[in-house]
Amino acid sequence: MIPPDHPRYRSLVARERIARYAGEGVVTFEGLAAHGRGEAFDYLIGERTTESALLAEKTAAALLLCARRPVISVNGNTAALAADEVARLQERARARVEVNLFHRSEERIRRITRLLEEAGVAVEKGEAERLLPLSHDRALCLRQGIYSADTVLVPLEDGDRCSALCSMGKTVIAIDLNPLSRTARAASLTIVDELTRALPHVTGACTSLSQEEALRLCSSYDNRKFLSGALEEIQKRLTHALD
Amino acid sequence: MIPPDHPRYRSLVARERIARYAGEGVVTFEGLAAHGRGEAFDYLIGERTTESALLAEKTAAALLLCARRPVISVNGNTAALAADEVARLQERARARVEVNLFHRSEERIRRITRLLEEAGVAVEKGEAERLLPLSHDRALCLRQGIYSADTVLVPLEDGDRCSALCSMGKTVIAIDLNPLSRTARAASLTIVDELTRALPHVTGACTSLSQEEALRLCSSYDNRKFLSGALEEIQKRLTHALD
Repeated sequence: MIPPDHPRYRSLVARERIARYAGEGVVTFEGLAAHGRGEAFDYLIGERTTESALLAEKTAAALLLCARRPVISVNGNTAALAADEVARLQERARARVEVNLFHRSEERIRRITRLLEEAGVAVEKGEAERLLPLSHDRALCLRQGIYSADTVLVPLEDGDRCSALCSMGKTVIAIDLNPLSRTARAASLTIVDELTRALPHVTGACTSLSQEEALRLCSSYDNRKFLSGALEEIQKRLTHALD
Repeated sequence: MIPPDHPRYRSLVARERIARYAGEGVVTFEGLAAHGRGEAFDYLIGERTTESALLAEKTAAALLLCARRPVISVNGNTAALAADEVARLQERARARVEVNLFHRSEERIRRITRLLEEAGVAVEKGEAERLLPLSHDRALCLRQGIYSADTVLVPLEDGDRCSALCSMGKTVIAIDLNPLSRTARAASLTIVDELTRALPHVTGACTSLSQEEALRLCSSYDNRKFLSGALEEIQKRLTHALD
Protein backbone atom coordinates (compact mmCIF):
# COMPACT_ATOMS: atom_id res chain seq x y z
CA MET A 1 0.00 0.00 0.00
CA ILE A 2 2.77 2.42 0.95
CA PRO A 3 4.85 3.08 -2.21
CA PRO A 4 8.45 1.86 -1.70
CA ASP A 5 9.82 5.10 -3.13
CA HIS A 6 8.07 7.18 -0.47
CA PRO A 7 10.82 9.14 1.33
CA ARG A 8 9.57 7.85 4.68
CA TYR A 9 8.76 4.31 3.48
CA ARG A 10 10.55 2.40 6.25
CA SER A 11 9.05 4.53 8.98
CA LEU A 12 5.52 4.13 7.59
CA VAL A 13 5.90 0.38 7.16
CA ALA A 14 7.12 0.08 10.74
CA ARG A 15 4.14 2.10 11.98
CA GLU A 16 1.79 -0.14 10.05
CA ARG A 17 3.37 -3.27 11.54
CA ILE A 18 3.17 -1.91 15.06
CA ALA A 19 -0.51 -1.03 14.63
CA ARG A 20 -1.28 -4.45 13.12
CA TYR A 21 0.39 -6.23 16.02
CA ALA A 22 -1.42 -4.01 18.51
CA GLY A 23 -4.62 -5.39 17.03
CA GLU A 24 -3.30 -8.89 17.74
CA GLY A 25 -2.33 -8.18 21.35
CA VAL A 26 1.42 -8.46 20.74
CA VAL A 27 2.00 -4.71 21.12
CA THR A 28 0.37 -2.83 24.02
CA PHE A 29 -1.17 0.66 23.95
CA GLU A 30 1.86 1.80 25.89
CA GLY A 31 4.03 0.16 23.22
CA LEU A 32 2.25 2.16 20.52
CA ALA A 33 2.94 5.43 22.32
CA ALA A 34 6.55 4.39 22.89
CA HIS A 35 6.87 3.69 19.17
CA GLY A 36 5.63 7.20 18.48
CA ARG A 37 8.26 8.65 20.81
CA GLY A 38 10.87 6.68 18.91
CA GLU A 39 9.57 7.98 15.59
CA ALA A 40 10.01 11.55 16.78
CA PHE A 41 13.63 10.98 17.75
CA ASP A 42 14.30 9.03 14.56
CA TYR A 43 12.96 11.98 12.61
CA LEU A 44 15.39 14.22 14.49
CA ILE A 45 18.43 12.08 13.66
CA GLY A 46 17.34 12.01 10.02
CA GLU A 47 15.89 8.48 9.84
CA ARG A 48 19.27 7.05 8.99
CA THR A 49 22.18 5.37 10.78
CA THR A 50 24.63 8.04 11.85
CA GLU A 51 28.38 7.38 11.87
CA SER A 52 28.36 7.42 15.63
CA ALA A 53 25.54 4.82 15.72
CA LEU A 54 27.37 2.60 13.24
CA LEU A 55 30.39 2.53 15.53
CA ALA A 56 28.09 1.69 18.46
CA GLU A 57 26.65 -1.17 16.39
CA LYS A 58 30.12 -2.57 15.68
CA THR A 59 30.94 -2.24 19.36
CA ALA A 60 27.74 -4.08 20.25
CA ALA A 61 28.78 -6.91 17.93
CA ALA A 62 32.18 -6.98 19.62
CA LEU A 63 30.60 -7.18 23.09
CA LEU A 64 28.32 -10.02 21.99
CA LEU A 65 31.25 -11.91 20.40
CA CYS A 66 33.38 -11.48 23.52
CA ALA A 67 30.54 -12.50 25.85
CA ARG A 68 30.57 -15.83 27.63
CA ARG A 69 26.79 -15.99 27.75
CA PRO A 70 25.01 -13.40 25.58
CA VAL A 71 21.22 -13.03 25.82
CA ILE A 72 18.82 -10.98 23.70
CA SER A 73 15.77 -9.78 25.66
CA VAL A 74 12.76 -9.39 23.36
CA ASN A 75 9.57 -7.45 24.11
CA GLY A 76 6.38 -6.94 22.11
CA ASN A 77 7.55 -4.02 19.98
CA THR A 78 10.83 -5.76 19.15
CA ALA A 79 9.06 -8.95 18.10
CA ALA A 80 6.53 -6.99 16.03
CA LEU A 81 9.16 -4.96 14.23
CA ALA A 82 12.13 -7.26 13.93
CA ALA A 83 11.48 -10.98 14.48
CA ASP A 84 13.49 -11.86 11.35
CA GLU A 85 16.38 -9.60 12.34
CA VAL A 86 16.47 -11.16 15.82
CA ALA A 87 16.66 -14.63 14.26
CA ARG A 88 19.66 -13.66 12.14
CA LEU A 89 21.45 -11.94 15.02
CA GLN A 90 20.83 -14.89 17.33
CA GLU A 91 22.52 -17.20 14.86
CA ARG A 92 25.58 -15.02 14.31
CA ALA A 93 26.02 -14.04 17.95
CA ARG A 94 25.20 -17.52 19.35
CA ALA A 95 22.85 -15.74 21.76
CA ARG A 96 19.94 -17.02 23.79
CA VAL A 97 16.66 -15.18 23.28
CA GLU A 98 14.26 -14.58 26.16
CA VAL A 99 10.85 -12.97 25.89
CA ASN A 100 10.70 -10.42 28.69
CA LEU A 101 7.78 -8.02 28.91
CA PHE A 102 7.05 -4.85 30.82
CA HIS A 103 3.30 -5.52 30.63
CA ARG A 104 3.63 -9.22 31.30
CA SER A 105 0.94 -11.82 30.79
CA GLU A 106 1.25 -15.47 29.92
CA GLU A 107 -0.96 -14.91 26.91
CA ARG A 108 1.30 -12.17 25.52
CA ILE A 109 4.39 -14.27 26.16
CA ARG A 110 2.83 -17.14 24.19
CA ARG A 111 1.90 -14.89 21.27
CA ILE A 112 5.29 -13.26 21.09
CA THR A 113 7.07 -16.61 21.42
CA ARG A 114 5.02 -17.97 18.53
CA LEU A 115 5.78 -14.91 16.41
CA LEU A 116 9.51 -15.30 17.07
CA GLU A 117 9.51 -19.03 16.44
CA GLU A 118 7.77 -18.54 13.12
CA ALA A 119 10.70 -16.30 12.17
CA GLY A 120 13.18 -19.02 13.15
CA VAL A 121 14.19 -17.78 16.60
CA ALA A 122 15.00 -20.39 19.28
CA VAL A 123 13.24 -19.01 22.35
CA GLU A 124 14.21 -19.90 25.95
CA LYS A 125 11.40 -21.43 27.94
CA GLY A 126 10.75 -22.41 31.51
CA GLU A 127 9.34 -21.13 34.76
CA ALA A 128 10.18 -17.44 35.26
CA GLU A 129 11.44 -16.58 38.76
CA ARG A 130 11.74 -13.25 40.57
CA LEU A 131 15.45 -12.82 40.12
CA LEU A 132 15.87 -9.16 39.15
CA PRO A 133 16.16 -6.40 41.77
CA LEU A 134 12.76 -4.92 40.87
CA SER A 135 9.35 -5.02 42.54
CA HIS A 136 6.50 -7.40 41.71
CA ASP A 137 6.40 -9.14 38.35
CA ARG A 138 8.99 -6.76 36.93
CA ALA A 139 11.51 -9.01 38.69
CA LEU A 140 10.59 -12.06 36.63
CA CYS A 141 13.08 -13.64 34.28
CA LEU A 142 14.46 -17.05 33.41
CA ARG A 143 17.34 -18.45 35.45
CA GLN A 144 19.07 -19.93 32.41
CA GLY A 145 18.29 -16.79 30.36
CA ILE A 146 18.71 -13.16 31.42
CA TYR A 147 19.67 -14.05 34.98
CA SER A 148 22.75 -16.03 33.92
CA ALA A 149 23.79 -13.70 31.11
CA ASP A 150 26.98 -11.71 31.31
CA THR A 151 25.91 -9.53 28.36
CA VAL A 152 22.30 -8.62 27.56
CA LEU A 153 21.02 -6.87 24.47
CA VAL A 154 17.85 -4.97 25.37
CA PRO A 155 16.20 -3.32 22.40
CA LEU A 156 13.59 -0.72 23.45
CA GLU A 157 13.95 -1.29 27.19
CA ASP A 158 12.45 0.53 30.15
CA GLY A 159 14.84 2.61 32.28
CA ASP A 160 14.30 0.75 35.56
CA ARG A 161 14.88 -2.62 33.96
CA CYS A 162 18.01 -1.42 32.24
CA SER A 163 19.39 -0.05 35.54
CA ALA A 164 18.51 -3.27 37.38
CA LEU A 165 20.45 -5.36 34.86
CA CYS A 166 23.43 -3.01 35.13
CA SER A 167 23.32 -3.22 38.93
CA MET A 168 23.73 -7.01 38.62
CA GLY A 169 27.09 -6.43 36.96
CA LYS A 170 25.95 -7.32 33.46
CA THR A 171 27.08 -5.57 30.32
CA VAL A 172 23.88 -4.04 28.97
CA ILE A 173 23.55 -3.03 25.33
CA ALA A 174 20.50 -0.84 24.70
CA ILE A 175 18.92 0.20 21.42
CA ASP A 176 17.10 3.45 22.10
CA LEU A 177 16.37 6.38 19.80
CA ASN A 178 16.19 8.87 22.67
CA PRO A 179 19.80 9.66 23.63
CA LEU A 180 18.54 11.32 26.83
CA SER A 181 16.34 8.50 28.12
CA ARG A 182 17.16 6.81 31.40
CA THR A 183 17.78 3.62 29.46
CA ALA A 184 20.25 5.32 27.12
CA ARG A 185 22.14 6.82 30.05
CA ALA A 186 22.11 3.72 32.26
CA ALA A 187 23.22 1.18 29.65
CA SER A 188 26.83 0.11 29.24
CA LEU A 189 26.47 0.79 25.53
CA THR A 190 23.62 2.54 23.74
CA ILE A 191 22.87 2.28 20.05
CA VAL A 192 20.92 5.41 19.11
CA ASP A 193 19.35 4.05 15.95
CA GLU A 194 16.08 2.59 14.74
CA LEU A 195 15.74 -1.11 15.57
CA THR A 196 15.40 -2.54 12.06
CA ARG A 197 18.37 -0.52 10.84
CA ALA A 198 20.47 -1.31 13.92
CA LEU A 199 20.09 -5.09 14.17
CA PRO A 200 21.36 -5.95 10.66
CA HIS A 201 24.42 -3.77 11.28
CA VAL A 202 25.15 -5.62 14.52
CA THR A 203 24.64 -8.96 12.77
CA GLY A 204 26.88 -7.96 9.88
CA ALA A 205 29.65 -6.85 12.21
CA CYS A 206 29.44 -10.19 14.06
CA THR A 207 30.75 -11.76 10.85
CA SER A 208 33.11 -9.06 9.62
CA LEU A 209 34.97 -8.15 12.82
CA SER A 210 38.32 -9.82 13.42
CA GLN A 211 38.96 -11.07 16.94
CA GLU A 212 41.58 -8.39 17.36
CA GLU A 213 39.20 -5.59 16.34
CA ALA A 214 36.51 -7.02 18.58
CA LEU A 215 38.81 -7.05 21.60
CA ARG A 216 39.95 -3.51 20.86
CA LEU A 217 36.35 -2.22 20.59
CA CYS A 218 35.32 -3.98 23.82
CA SER A 219 38.09 -2.42 25.82
CA SER A 220 37.93 1.15 24.56
CA TYR A 221 34.34 2.33 24.15
CA ASP A 222 32.76 5.23 26.02
CA ASN A 223 28.96 5.35 26.04
CA ARG A 224 28.90 9.07 26.72
CA LYS A 225 30.55 9.65 23.36
CA PHE A 226 27.81 7.75 21.58
CA LEU A 227 25.14 9.77 23.37
CA SER A 228 26.79 13.09 22.65
CA GLY A 229 27.34 11.99 19.06
CA ALA A 230 23.59 11.52 18.69
CA LEU A 231 22.82 14.84 20.38
CA GLU A 232 25.21 16.68 18.08
CA GLU A 233 23.52 15.09 15.09
CA ILE A 234 20.12 16.34 16.28
CA GLN A 235 21.50 19.80 16.98
CA LYS A 236 23.02 20.01 13.52
CA ARG A 237 19.72 19.12 11.91
CA LEU A 238 17.73 21.57 14.03
CA THR A 239 20.08 24.42 13.17
CA HIS A 240 19.16 24.29 9.48
CA ALA A 241 15.66 22.95 9.89
CA LEU A 242 13.76 26.10 8.96
CA ASP A 243 16.08 27.18 6.13
CA MET B 1 -2.23 5.86 40.95
CA ILE B 2 0.43 8.23 39.62
CA PRO B 3 1.64 10.35 42.57
CA PRO B 4 0.86 14.06 41.94
CA ASP B 5 4.38 15.05 43.00
CA HIS B 6 5.96 12.87 40.31
CA PRO B 7 8.10 15.21 38.17
CA ARG B 8 6.35 13.97 35.04
CA TYR B 9 2.86 13.73 36.57
CA ARG B 10 0.96 15.59 33.85
CA SER B 11 2.62 13.68 31.07
CA LEU B 12 1.89 10.33 32.71
CA VAL B 13 -1.74 11.24 33.42
CA ALA B 14 -2.18 12.28 29.79
CA ARG B 15 -0.69 9.00 28.61
CA GLU B 16 -3.05 7.07 30.87
CA ARG B 17 -6.06 8.99 29.52
CA ILE B 18 -5.04 8.39 25.93
CA ALA B 19 -4.63 4.65 26.54
CA ARG B 20 -7.99 4.46 28.36
CA TYR B 21 -9.77 6.19 25.49
CA ALA B 22 -8.01 3.95 22.99
CA GLY B 23 -9.70 1.08 24.80
CA GLU B 24 -13.04 2.83 24.25
CA GLY B 25 -12.51 3.47 20.54
CA VAL B 26 -12.22 7.25 20.90
CA VAL B 27 -8.48 7.28 20.19
CA THR B 28 -7.09 5.22 17.29
CA PHE B 29 -3.84 3.23 17.19
CA GLU B 30 -2.47 5.96 14.96
CA GLY B 31 -3.58 8.48 17.60
CA LEU B 32 -1.61 6.62 20.26
CA ALA B 33 1.56 6.73 18.18
CA ALA B 34 0.97 10.40 17.42
CA HIS B 35 0.62 11.04 21.14
CA GLY B 36 3.99 9.38 21.67
CA ARG B 37 5.58 11.63 19.05
CA GLY B 38 4.13 14.60 20.89
CA GLU B 39 5.53 13.34 24.20
CA ALA B 40 9.01 13.20 22.70
CA PHE B 41 8.85 16.80 21.54
CA ASP B 42 7.28 17.93 24.81
CA TYR B 43 10.16 16.33 26.63
CA LEU B 44 12.55 18.30 24.42
CA ILE B 45 10.90 21.66 25.19
CA GLY B 46 11.00 20.80 28.90
CA GLU B 47 7.34 19.85 29.43
CA ARG B 48 6.45 23.45 30.15
CA THR B 49 5.02 26.45 28.29
CA THR B 50 7.90 28.45 26.86
CA GLU B 51 7.75 32.23 26.62
CA SER B 52 7.47 31.99 22.89
CA ALA B 53 4.52 29.55 23.18
CA LEU B 54 2.77 31.82 25.67
CA LEU B 55 2.91 34.67 23.20
CA ALA B 56 1.54 32.34 20.51
CA GLU B 57 -1.31 31.43 22.89
CA LYS B 58 -2.16 35.10 23.45
CA THR B 59 -2.04 35.65 19.70
CA ALA B 60 -4.36 32.69 19.19
CA ALA B 61 -6.83 34.24 21.63
CA ALA B 62 -6.59 37.51 19.71
CA LEU B 63 -7.27 35.75 16.40
CA LEU B 64 -10.29 33.98 17.87
CA LEU B 65 -11.63 37.22 19.38
CA CYS B 66 -11.19 39.07 16.10
CA ALA B 67 -12.78 36.27 14.06
CA ARG B 68 -16.19 36.63 12.53
CA ARG B 69 -16.88 32.92 12.70
CA PRO B 70 -14.37 30.94 14.80
CA VAL B 71 -14.53 27.15 14.79
CA ILE B 72 -12.65 24.61 16.90
CA SER B 73 -12.03 21.31 15.09
CA VAL B 74 -11.86 18.42 17.56
CA ASN B 75 -10.42 14.96 16.88
CA GLY B 76 -10.17 11.84 19.08
CA ASN B 77 -6.96 12.73 20.88
CA THR B 78 -8.17 16.27 21.61
CA ALA B 79 -11.46 15.01 23.03
CA ALA B 80 -9.70 12.38 25.13
CA LEU B 81 -7.18 14.80 26.56
CA ALA B 82 -9.03 18.08 26.82
CA ALA B 83 -12.84 17.92 26.60
CA ASP B 84 -13.18 20.22 29.65
CA GLU B 85 -10.65 22.69 28.28
CA VAL B 86 -12.46 22.79 24.93
CA ALA B 87 -15.75 23.54 26.74
CA ARG B 88 -14.21 26.51 28.55
CA LEU B 89 -12.52 27.85 25.44
CA GLN B 90 -15.71 27.50 23.41
CA GLU B 91 -17.56 29.66 25.92
CA ARG B 92 -14.95 32.42 26.07
CA ALA B 93 -14.24 32.49 22.35
CA ARG B 94 -17.89 32.06 21.29
CA ALA B 95 -16.66 29.36 18.93
CA ARG B 96 -18.47 26.53 17.20
CA VAL B 97 -17.05 23.07 17.81
CA GLU B 98 -17.01 20.45 15.06
CA VAL B 99 -15.84 16.87 15.45
CA ASN B 100 -13.58 16.21 12.49
CA LEU B 101 -11.62 12.98 12.29
CA PHE B 102 -8.75 11.70 10.20
CA HIS B 103 -9.88 8.11 10.70
CA ARG B 104 -13.55 8.89 10.28
CA SER B 105 -16.43 6.63 11.18
CA GLU B 106 -19.93 7.49 12.30
CA GLU B 107 -19.41 5.39 15.41
CA ARG B 108 -16.29 7.34 16.43
CA ILE B 109 -18.03 10.66 15.73
CA ARG B 110 -20.89 9.61 18.01
CA ARG B 111 -18.54 8.56 20.81
CA ILE B 112 -16.46 11.71 20.63
CA THR B 113 -19.56 13.90 20.43
CA ARG B 114 -20.94 12.23 23.56
CA LEU B 115 -17.65 12.69 25.39
CA LEU B 116 -17.57 16.39 24.50
CA GLU B 117 -21.22 16.95 25.40
CA GLU B 118 -20.68 15.35 28.79
CA ALA B 119 -18.01 18.00 29.36
CA GLY B 120 -20.45 20.75 28.40
CA VAL B 121 -19.38 21.39 24.82
CA ALA B 122 -22.07 22.39 22.29
CA VAL B 123 -21.21 20.27 19.26
CA GLU B 124 -22.25 21.14 15.69
CA LYS B 125 -24.29 18.45 14.01
CA GLY B 126 -25.65 17.73 10.57
CA GLU B 127 -24.85 15.97 7.34
CA ALA B 128 -21.15 16.26 6.51
CA GLU B 129 -20.41 17.19 2.88
CA ARG B 130 -17.25 16.92 0.79
CA LEU B 131 -16.30 20.55 0.96
CA LEU B 132 -12.55 20.54 1.61
CA PRO B 133 -9.99 20.29 -1.24
CA LEU B 134 -8.92 16.77 -0.21
CA SER B 135 -9.61 13.32 -1.63
CA HIS B 136 -12.26 10.88 -0.41
CA ASP B 137 -13.70 11.21 3.07
CA ARG B 138 -10.89 13.53 4.12
CA ALA B 139 -12.94 16.23 2.36
CA LEU B 140 -15.89 15.86 4.70
CA CYS B 141 -16.93 18.67 6.99
CA LEU B 142 -20.04 20.56 8.02
CA ARG B 143 -21.21 23.46 5.89
CA GLN B 144 -22.17 25.55 8.92
CA GLY B 145 -18.99 24.49 10.76
CA ILE B 146 -15.46 24.34 9.42
CA TYR B 147 -16.53 25.20 5.85
CA SER B 148 -17.97 28.57 6.86
CA ALA B 149 -15.29 29.44 9.41
CA ASP B 150 -12.93 32.32 8.83
CA THR B 151 -10.67 31.13 11.67
CA VAL B 152 -10.18 27.49 12.64
CA LEU B 153 -8.36 26.17 15.68
CA VAL B 154 -6.98 22.72 14.86
CA PRO B 155 -5.32 21.05 17.81
CA LEU B 156 -3.20 18.05 16.75
CA GLU B 157 -4.02 18.26 13.04
CA ASP B 158 -2.67 16.35 10.07
CA GLY B 159 -0.49 18.30 7.63
CA ASP B 160 -2.67 17.83 4.54
CA ARG B 161 -5.78 18.96 6.35
CA CYS B 162 -4.03 21.98 7.74
CA SER B 163 -2.79 22.96 4.27
CA ALA B 164 -6.23 22.43 2.74
CA LEU B 165 -7.82 24.79 5.27
CA CYS B 166 -5.14 27.40 4.61
CA SER B 167 -5.68 27.10 0.85
CA MET B 168 -9.33 28.03 1.43
CA GLY B 169 -8.18 31.37 2.81
CA LYS B 170 -8.92 30.58 6.42
CA THR B 171 -6.78 31.64 9.34
CA VAL B 172 -5.58 28.34 10.79
CA ILE B 173 -4.31 28.08 14.36
CA ALA B 174 -2.49 24.81 15.03
CA ILE B 175 -1.40 23.32 18.33
CA ASP B 176 1.52 21.02 17.54
CA LEU B 177 4.51 20.02 19.65
CA ASN B 178 6.70 19.34 16.63
CA PRO B 179 7.88 22.73 15.35
CA LEU B 180 9.08 21.05 12.14
CA SER B 181 5.89 19.20 11.23
CA ARG B 182 4.06 20.05 8.03
CA THR B 183 1.15 21.23 10.16
CA ALA B 184 3.35 23.57 12.17
CA ARG B 185 4.84 25.05 9.01
CA ALA B 186 1.60 25.33 7.06
CA ALA B 187 -0.55 26.92 9.77
CA SER B 188 -1.10 30.67 9.99
CA LEU B 189 -0.15 30.44 13.67
CA THR B 190 1.35 27.47 15.51
CA ILE B 191 1.29 27.01 19.25
CA VAL B 192 4.20 24.69 20.09
CA ASP B 193 2.91 23.52 23.45
CA GLU B 194 1.13 20.57 25.00
CA LEU B 195 -2.62 20.70 24.47
CA THR B 196 -3.79 20.77 28.10
CA ARG B 197 -1.29 23.50 28.95
CA ALA B 198 -2.05 25.49 25.80
CA LEU B 199 -5.85 25.63 25.86
CA PRO B 200 -6.24 27.22 29.33
CA HIS B 201 -3.74 29.91 28.33
CA VAL B 202 -5.75 30.69 25.20
CA THR B 203 -8.97 30.74 27.22
CA GLY B 204 -7.43 32.99 29.86
CA ALA B 205 -6.17 35.44 27.26
CA CYS B 206 -9.65 35.57 25.68
CA THR B 207 -10.76 37.29 28.90
CA SER B 208 -7.68 39.32 29.74
CA LEU B 209 -6.80 40.84 26.37
CA SER B 210 -8.05 44.34 25.66
CA GLN B 211 -9.52 44.95 22.20
CA GLU B 212 -6.54 47.13 21.41
CA GLU B 213 -4.01 44.46 22.36
CA ALA B 214 -5.97 41.84 20.43
CA LEU B 215 -5.93 43.95 17.28
CA ARG B 216 -2.23 44.64 17.66
CA LEU B 217 -1.42 40.92 18.10
CA CYS B 218 -3.56 39.94 15.10
CA SER B 219 -1.82 42.35 12.79
CA SER B 220 1.79 41.77 13.78
CA TYR B 221 2.53 38.09 14.35
CA ASP B 222 5.03 36.00 12.40
CA ASN B 223 4.63 32.24 12.64
CA ARG B 224 8.24 31.62 11.66
CA LYS B 225 9.31 33.37 14.85
CA PHE B 226 7.23 31.03 16.97
CA LEU B 227 8.72 28.01 15.22
CA SER B 228 12.28 29.22 15.56
CA GLY B 229 11.56 30.14 19.20
CA ALA B 230 10.62 26.52 19.87
CA LEU B 231 13.66 25.20 18.00
CA GLU B 232 15.98 27.47 19.97
CA GLU B 233 14.45 26.20 23.19
CA ILE B 234 15.12 22.59 22.17
CA GLN B 235 18.66 23.43 21.12
CA LYS B 236 19.35 25.13 24.43
CA ARG B 237 18.17 22.09 26.35
CA LEU B 238 20.14 19.65 24.22
CA THR B 239 23.33 21.63 24.71
CA HIS B 240 23.33 21.02 28.46
CA ALA B 241 21.51 17.71 28.41
CA LEU B 242 24.43 15.47 29.31
CA ASP B 243 26.03 17.84 31.87
